[in-house]
Amino acid sequence: MISEKIKPLVNHNSAIRAMFEEGRRLAAIYGEEHVFDFSLGNPNVPAPQSVNMAICDILKEENSVFVHGYMSNAGFEDVRAAIAKSLNRRFNTKFHQNNILMTAGAASGLNVILKTLLNPGDEVIVFAPYFVEYGNYVSNYDGRLIVISPDTETFQPNLDELEKKINAKTKAVIINTPNNPTGVVYSAKTLARLADILRAKEEELKTAIVLISDEPYRELAYDGVEVPYVTRFYDDTVVAYSYSKTLSLPGERIGYLVIPDELEESGQVFTAATIANRVLGSVNAPSLMQRAILRCVDEKVDLEAYDRNRNLLYNGLIRAGFECVKPEGAFYLFVKAPEADEKRFCGICKQHNILVVPGSSFACPGYVRIAYCVSSEQIQRALPEFEKVAKAYGMNQ
Amino acid sequence: MISEKIKPLVNHNSAIRAMFEEGRRLAAIYGEEHVFDFSLGNPNVPAPQSVNMAICDILKEENSVFVHGYMSNAGFEDVRAAIAKSLNRRFNTKFHQNNILMTAGAASGLNVILKTLLNPGDEVIVFAPYFVEYGNYVSNYDGRLIVISPDTETFQPNLDELEKKINAKTKAVIINTPNNPTGVVYSAKTLARLADILRAKEEELKTAIVLISDEPYRELAYDGVEVPYVTRFYDDTVVAYSYSKTLSLPGERIGYLVIPDELEESGQVFTAATIANRVLGSVNAPSLMQRAILRCVDEKVDLEAYDRNRNLLYNGLIRAGFECVKPEGAFYLFVKAPEADEKRFCGICKQHNILVVPGSSFACPGYVRIAYCVSSEQIQRALPEFEKVAKAYGMNQ
Repeated sequence: MISEKIKPLVNHNSAIRAMFEEGRRLAAIYGEEHVFDFSLGNPNVPAPQSVNMAICDILKEENSVFVHGYMSNAGFEDVRAAIAKSLNRRFNTKFHQNNILMTAGAASGLNVILKTLLNPGDEVIVFAPYFVEYGNYVSNYDGRLIVISPDTETFQPNLDELEKKINAKTKAVIINTPNNPTGVVYSAKTLARLADILRAKEEELKTAIVLISDEPYRELAYDGVEVPYVTRFYDDTVVAYSYSKTLSLPGERIGYLVIPDELEESGQVFTAATIANRVLGSVNAPSLMQRAILRCVDEKVDLEAYDRNRNLLYNGLIRAGFECVKPEGAFYLFVKAPEADEKRFCGICKQHNILVVPGSSFACPGYVRIAYCVSSEQIQRALPEFEKVAKAYGMNQ
Repeated sequence: MISEKIKPLVNHNSAIRAMFEEGRRLAAIYGEEHVFDFSLGNPNVPAPQSVNMAICDILKEENSVFVHGYMSNAGFEDVRAAIAKSLNRRFNTKFHQNNILMTAGAASGLNVILKTLLNPGDEVIVFAPYFVEYGNYVSNYDGRLIVISPDTETFQPNLDELEKKINAKTKAVIINTPNNPTGVVYSAKTLARLADILRAKEEELKTAIVLISDEPYRELAYDGVEVPYVTRFYDDTVVAYSYSKTLSLPGERIGYLVIPDELEESGQVFTAATIANRVLGSVNAPSLMQRAILRCVDEKVDLEAYDRNRNLLYNGLIRAGFECVKPEGAFYLFVKAPEADEKRFCGICKQHNILVVPGSSFACPGYVRIAYCVSSEQIQRALPEFEKVAKAYGMNQ
C-alpha cells in the first residue's frame, strides 16, 4: 500500500519506537524519577510569559477574521518587516520584509528551500555529525546527500574535505550552528574560510552553491560567545530560523527563511519559495503565532537554566572521566563513548536507567548525544549513575 | 537557480498576481467599497467566541511547556480521541484515536497521504471542476493527475467516465464534497455507486484504490441537506478534514486525516503518514490549536450569514437571467458564463468592478466561481452591477 520511498522510513521508525517503549518500560518498573531520559531535544524551559500574554491580548485587541485568516503565503507583512528590522539592529544586516518568508518552523523552511532549489540528482553537502532529518528532507526532492566526515578534535566543519567533495552537481551546503548534536558554535574564522571555498568553487565551476544555515539554536549561546550572522560572510546564503527553542514553542511550528537580496536571482527564489510553502501544504505559517512574534520579536527564554545544566553536566562528566568538547551553544553534549561501539555503551547506560542517543544517528559513531534540556534535579540524580558507568569502564581510577 | 519543477508554478503565479494587482488598482480608483471582490475563499464570518476564549483559558490553565511542546507527530492523544468520539457520535462510525492524524489543515493532510501512497507514475483521478492545487500536490510526489470531465447538468461526479479511466496504475481518487467550486453535495446515491465501481475495479485489477475525501466544507451545508460520511460507503477511504471553514481558522493550519481500520494495511499507512507529516516539515499540527480543538470539538461558525448570502446572491443572479445549480454547501456559486469564453466574461464583469474566477482555473471553462464569503452589503451593492452585465449580454429581456 505505501510508497517505496517511505518504506525504509517506516522500518527505521520501528527501531526508534522500540527505544521509546523501552524508556516507558523502565519508567513503569523504576518510576519516572528514576529514569534519566536525555534523549529528546524538547525544551523544558517554558515560553516567556510575555508570549502567552501577547496571544491573549491579540485575541482581545485584533479582529478575529484577520488574526485567524489567510494572508500572503509568505506571511503577514508587518510581522516580516519587524523581523527584518530586529535582525538589522542585532546583526548589522540590511534586510526588508521581502527577504523574510514565514514558515512552519525550520523543518518546514528547509523543505521549502530544498523544494525551491533541487533538481533530481543535485547534491547537498552536510557535515557529520548532522541532524538525521536532513537526509529525509533532501530525499523528498530526489537530491543526493553528501556527508563530510567529522573533525572530532573541534567539531568545527572539516573544510578540507568539503573543498574536495564540491563538484558541478553541488547545489547546496547545509550548516547548523550552534550545532545539534555537538553544541559547537562555528567561529567567524570557520565561516570566512567556508565562504572563501564556496566562492572559489562557484567561480571555478560556474555554478551557484547555496549555503543553507539552519539556526534553531541561534539564541542559545553561552559565555558571551558570538554566533556570527552567516549572510555577512557569503552572498548565496539562505537562513532557516525557528522560534522552537528561542521562545520554547516547538509544537507551534513557527519560524522563517531569510532570502537576502544578495542571493543570486533572489526575487525569483523568494517567489518560488513562497509557492513551495503553499503547495507543500503549509500554505502559510500559523497566523496567531505570527501575530505573537510581532509583539515578542526580541524576546527569548531564560537561558540561565540551560547554562546551569550545561556546566553541571559537563563538569560532572569530565570529573567522572568522560571526554567531551565543551559546548558553547544549543542544549546538547556530544560525549566520546569509552568504547568504539557506542551503541553497546548506550546499552550499558540503559542498565543504569540513563537514556542517550548513539552518535551513529548523526553519522558519527563512537559518540553519544546527551540533551540537557531537562530539570537540574534529573542531572543531579543521574551524575552518580554516570560515575558508576565510568567505573565499570575503569575510567578515572 | 530554481528547480525545473517549480518554474511553471512561478510563471503561472505571475498571472494570479496580475489579477490581484488589478483588483488593488480598481480599489485605488473607485474605493474599496465600490469594488466587488468575489474571488477569494477566505471566510468573512469570525471564529466562534468560544474558540478565542478556549485559547486564553488553555494558556491560563495548562502547563506552558506541555501546551507549546512537541508531542507525537500524529498529535496529542486526547485531542485525537475526542475527534474520534465526536465523529462516532455524529456519523455512527467506530473510530479511535489511532485513526486520527492531526495535520496542518487539509492541504497538509492531502500532501501527507499522497506522499504516503504514491510511487512515481501512479495515477490520481479528480473530477472537474476541481481545486487546482490537487494537481500540484500530486505532482509533488511525481504522480499523474487524471481529470474526469464535468457533468454540467448536476455537477455530481461523472461516474461513467470514471469507470473507463481506472486502470492498474490508479492509486487514488480524490473527491471534494461539499464541493469547491460548485457548492454541490455528493448524494448517498452517488457515493454508493462510486463505491461499487471502485470495489469492482479493485477486484478486477487486484489493486487497492484509495478514495481520498477532501472535506474542508463538511459543516457548511444548508437546507438541512445530509453530507454522507464517506468511510461508511467504501473501506479504502481516507478523509482529509480542516477547521479552516468550520471554525474560521484558515490561517491557523489545523485539521486531520482519518485513516480508518477498514483501509487495507491501515496500521502501516497510519505509521507512514505520521512519518510523512514529520519529514515534510510540518512535524506536527500546531499544538495550541490542537488543544483548542479539544475544547471546541463540536463547535461551528454561524452558518446563517453564509446561508443568507447564498440565497441573496443566487436569487439575484437567477432574476438577472444567469444559470446556476443552486448550491447546497460550501460558499461558492458556479455560474454559467453567458458566452463560451468565460475569461472574456470575467473581463466584462471587471468593467463593472466585479472580480470572479474563471472556470478554466478549475478545469471547467464556460463557468465562473463566485465566492459569497463576503458581507451581505457587498452582494447587495453588486447585484445591480450583475444586472447591467446581464443586460449587456441581452439576457432576460
